[in-house]
Amino acid sequence: MKLNKQIINKSNQFKTPFLLVDLKQVSKHYNNIKKNLSGVEVFYSMKANDHPRIVETLVKENASFDITSERELNSLNKNSLSSKKITCLNPIKSPEFLKRLFENKITIMAYDSFDEVDKIARYAPGSKLVLRIVVDNEGSDWPLTKKYGVNPAEALPLLKYALGKKLQPIGLTFHVGSQCRNKNNWVNALFVCETLWALAKKENIHFNFLSLGGGLPIQHDRPIPALEDIGKGIKKMLSNNFKSADSPLRVAIEPGRAIVGDSAIMVTSVIGKAKRGSENWLYVDTGVFNGFMETIDGFTYDIKTIKNTAIKKFTIGGPSCDSVDIPFKNVVLEDVKIGDKIYVLNAGAYTTVYASTFNGFEIPKTYFLSDD
Amino acid sequence: MKLNKQIINKSNQFKTPFLLVDLKQVSKHYNNIKKNLSGVEVFYSMKANDHPRIVETLVKENASFDITSERELNSLNKNSLSSKKITCLNPIKSPEFLKRLFENKITIMAYDSFDEVDKIARYAPGSKLVLRIVVDNEGSDWPLTKKYGVNPAEALPLLKYALGKKLQPIGLTFHVGSQCRNKNNWVNALFVCETLWALAKKENIHFNFLSLGGGLPIQHDRPIPALEDIGKGIKKMLSNNFKSADSPLRVAIEPGRAIVGDSAIMVTSVIGKAKRGSENWLYVDTGVFNGFMETIDGFTYDIKTIKNTAIKKFTIGGPSCDSVDIPFKNVVLEDVKIGDKIYVLNAGAYTTVYASTFNGFEIPKTYFLSDD
Repeated sequence: MKLNKQIINKSNQFKTPFLLVDLKQVSKHYNNIKKNLSGVEVFYSMKANDHPRIVETLVKENASFDITSERELNSLNKNSLSSKKITCLNPIKSPEFLKRLFENKITIMAYDSFDEVDKIARYAPGSKLVLRIVVDNEGSDWPLTKKYGVNPAEALPLLKYALGKKLQPIGLTFHVGSQCRNKNNWVNALFVCETLWALAKKENIHFNFLSLGGGLPIQHDRPIPALEDIGKGIKKMLSNNFKSADSPLRVAIEPGRAIVGDSAIMVTSVIGKAKRGSENWLYVDTGVFNGFMETIDGFTYDIKTIKNTAIKKFTIGGPSCDSVDIPFKNVVLEDVKIGDKIYVLNAGAYTTVYASTFNGFEIPKTYFLSDD
Repeated sequence: MKLNKQIINKSNQFKTPFLLVDLKQVSKHYNNIKKNLSGVEVFYSMKANDHPRIVETLVKENASFDITSERELNSLNKNSLSSKKITCLNPIKSPEFLKRLFENKITIMAYDSFDEVDKIARYAPGSKLVLRIVVDNEGSDWPLTKKYGVNPAEALPLLKYALGKKLQPIGLTFHVGSQCRNKNNWVNALFVCETLWALAKKENIHFNFLSLGGGLPIQHDRPIPALEDIGKGIKKMLSNNFKSADSPLRVAIEPGRAIVGDSAIMVTSVIGKAKRGSENWLYVDTGVFNGFMETIDGFTYDIKTIKNTAIKKFTIGGPSCDSVDIPFKNVVLEDVKIGDKIYVLNAGAYTTVYASTFNGFEIPKTYFLSDD
């Protein structure tokens, strides 16, 4: 989503900081994923941005959803979404949340431990289980930690244990890492899935659900593989190697960032300037704690001003008096003044949802480009 | 603040996650700082925890306050606090906030740049300015970055510039780093202040305000200097070397963590367990995003269960499905079960205030030990 006159004009209507969302972009990205991964069901990962208008837009597009908490469930219930279009692929769920999933007839959920099987059997009996396996994360901006997933070699006992508790193991899920820039990660993961699929079949466990996880990248400062190429690799692998799958095979993917990241711009104002040694500093009204938490992890954004005359390098600090609150470094801009607006592109995902009111600063409001 | 029967009984009244605050401890820590730094005015740094009951308790104790935002100001206004007891030592303030400070007759504020002088002269004319200088942060758990402060050598032009804009430069402020474990940092900083003090006097700029900043440490897993020793060093330095200061000299300190950190316990429940390779994992209902943001920066907490029989080492993950959400590592506990409570000690500062509702998980509520 590029900075244009419409966005600049719209931005002048509001007090900063705010996130300006283009819902048409949300639809466009959703449909683009559908197109390049034909036959794959797109479950929007609600954690990326659960604003009701974004959810509503995706419901209208006929999207499915992956949730992890009661608040996310309630948001979907408001949209009268069929429980068949909702999964919970977080492998660890509280007893309370499992009860709510059961009450709401949401039966497809992930697991990756014996304790989770016991818990699901007790609070959501009869559920359909998707086993989360560990796969290669090489080439992703944020390789996942060991927080979730079992090694494929340890999968069978867990599948059998679920069966023994009268649950239904229906398939597999994995995650290739966030902002995955290696298109082969999905294909490599599918090789592992295929082997497990066949192994399970030998044990008379018939899978019919395959989740491709998250990790679809969006363009920031480094090259990413084309969605078309990722899609081609996945489709080829699925048609060549999952022929033995019991039909109908339901293939799911759970993008978040890839749908909303590039659908919004964060607009913030310069509130201070300082020269510190040889460094030029700017201070803006949205920082690490009220919008740009991901910068702590090394995430970078494209940053623009109205004038496209980049002449000076800045370090940019947030509004709180916390020394950690320095969201942007080495940003080349025009020589901005106090009161000027700074436009942070591709800021739709993991910004407002991570934000707190630390030090008394507001969470940026969300506005929509199409609203009058 | 140690885990005892009263806390355990009280904790059983509430649904996790929550922060259990002992307001008596808040008063105790405040008075302990007053006692060990006699003659020094304690300005509570509101960003550490701005819960209204904590603020109210400190107002009753006759504390002063350091603020940075409109919300913090409003909270103090509700307590009818005199504007003389409020400072804003954040060196960068938005034009809007400066107007509010001016309207509210809050005149003591920090600065460290020429642009800030221009802004203050315009929006809060006549204000009393405290120059933030850079000092040695050696031996602090979080040395500050270059976000704020001028090198002492660059101080004079800034002081004169403020005078030229009809503002009143009244003194100096510094920060020795967060969780400062080197008692000499304050003394070393005061040496720098003394020199600048004398230099300013030569220019006919008469200081009467000296802020010792933040950084008073609380006990976690590593030894810290005794408050008494920090106080002794500061008092000795002040009485020996600031005799030439125009009286009355107002000396301020701005602790946050040292007052509320050790005044509360975060109570969370185990919602999942898994064995991953050789690692034992627990999953709890408060994680990095809804309470333990500081763990990302390496902050560690003392973690307890009811039974004091530590036998097993755990990695502890939070409730969101984000792979960054792993607040605690290498925690030795009893062999806890799903539903058991985990007590995180010294969690009063920089926990609930940093928390967001990411992934739909609630910000822990705050309860008070003394309430029936």
